[in-house]
Amino acid sequence: MRLVRMTWNGGAHWGEVSGETVQFTDGMAGPRTGESAPFDEAALLPPAEPTKIVCVGRNYLDHIRELGNDKGDLPAEPGIFLKGPNALAEPGGTVEAPDWSDNFHFEGELALVMGTRAQGLTPENALSAVAGYTCGLDLTARDRQKTDLQWFRAKAADRFCPLGPWLETELNPADLRVQTRVNGESKQDSRTSLMIFDVPAILTYVTRFVTLEPGDVVLTGTPEGVGPLKAGDTVEVDVEGVGVLVTQIG
Amino acid sequence: MRLVRMTWNGGAHWGEVSGETVQFTDGMAGPRTGESAPFDEAALLPPAEPTKIVCVGRNYLDHIRELGNDKGDLPAEPGIFLKGPNALAEPGGTVEAPDWSDNFHFEGELALVMGTRAQGLTPENALSAVAGYTCGLDLTARDRQKTDLQWFRAKAADRFCPLGPWLETELNPADLRVQTRVNGESKQDSRTSLMIFDVPAILTYVTRFVTLEPGDVVLTGTPEGVGPLKAGDTVEVDVEGVGVLVTQIG
Repeated sequence: MRLVRMTWNGGAHWGEVSGETVQFTDGMAGPRTGESAPFDEAALLPPAEPTKIVCVGRNYLDHIRELGNDKGDLPAEPGIFLKGPNALAEPGGTVEAPDWSDNFHFEGELALVMGTRAQGLTPENALSAVAGYTCGLDLTARDRQKTDLQWFRAKAADRFCPLGPWLETELNPADLRVQTRVNGESKQDSRTSLMIFDVPAILTYVTRFVTLEPGDVVLTGTPEGVGPLKAGDTVEVDVEGVGVLVTQIG
Repeated sequence: MRLVRMTWNGGAHWGEVSGETVQFTDGMAGPRTGESAPFDEAALLPPAEPTKIVCVGRNYLDHIRELGNDKGDLPAEPGIFLKGPNALAEPGGTVEAPDWSDNFHFEGELALVMGTRAQGLTPENALSAVAGYTCGLDLTARDRQKTDLQWFRAKAADRFCPLGPWLETELNPADLRVQTRVNGESKQDSRTSLMIFDVPAILTYVTRFVTLEPGDVVLTGTPEGVGPLKAGDTVEVDVEGVGVLVTQIG
């Protein structure tokens, strides 16, 4: 099933894509309301209403190496950081390049949205708590990531998390191709099977410490190939089995 | 005005304290609903419904020195980190000491709750965006703060942010005494006038990058005197002009 969140008649709606039509639902994955709209006229919104966005850093060995962070040992545990809901940006949207960074980077990632409240998940049951999968663009002020005490403005500034275009509910996240293109040129091309911590391991780790709520977003880390963006660039994050998240840099 | 959030007849209510009575309001600082409850029977909730909790690290020079982080220069900009709403705990509540930390610390702080949506605040108008002031306890797994990539579980684990007991709306945050006691013994005793970045400076900095929403919480940093907690301890954070936030460690 493909779940979208969209603007229609001035309001925000969740819905199921059924052919050319969006059948509106009462919330994410809720019962159908009986209303519908044509899919090709949908102004898509980020397909999540999170209380927090939980992100994994350094989850692909090739990316650890490209940033010079390979100390010889793989991380023993996932490295986690937070963005707030202010970071979300809609599919197809424009994100302004910040005037306070000289090295504004793209990081394309598999993202997921929680379907149920989750504490103490196990590798065996973790995926059953996921509502669906989508594409995430973890925008990063690389210079500020290095100079600041913590990755606050470097990662969590307004609109630093484009998400979408929709949720795919029937997807196995174990081995999906993840690609990022900038102005049509391939920059990142990897597979989720190369993650150091796979999706069940990430969710198991996070929910030892933090309760995830329905709608919370998890970004699963970026592979090798990150690089700078400038105004006018078009970024595409393409996750196999989902589709393409397009973001313009303004 | 003193604003409380409390449980009454099975629901959560905001209200104004008026003598012995809480006059319920439609949301934080909203119009009165006409309903009321006796204040001495109130089961208090954290006086905030945030989308994020924005915290300042290293905002008192004596605290920077006690942790060995004094490199000779004062920070040029506030060091910011995030907790999610999952971190809130109610006044008078019990927080379990985590079994994954051997050095679980208290950090008593002045906290504030935003009253309006805020972007691009200035030192001149920043305080007008604040709904009120309260006490915050920034619980910290000091060992994990040092070992982990970012301060995620060290700071943002469930219930790592007791907040309350209420909001005081008519308070000047410039020079308030902030004390923390553990089992009645004074551990922290400082004044907000010793902050490196005062409240207007913090809000001006944060809202350059991140939009603050009504209900968002800001913790303003902790002074010298932090230390470990163990099961059975009682922590009191006492902010002049507010009152005392009591937390039991379980």
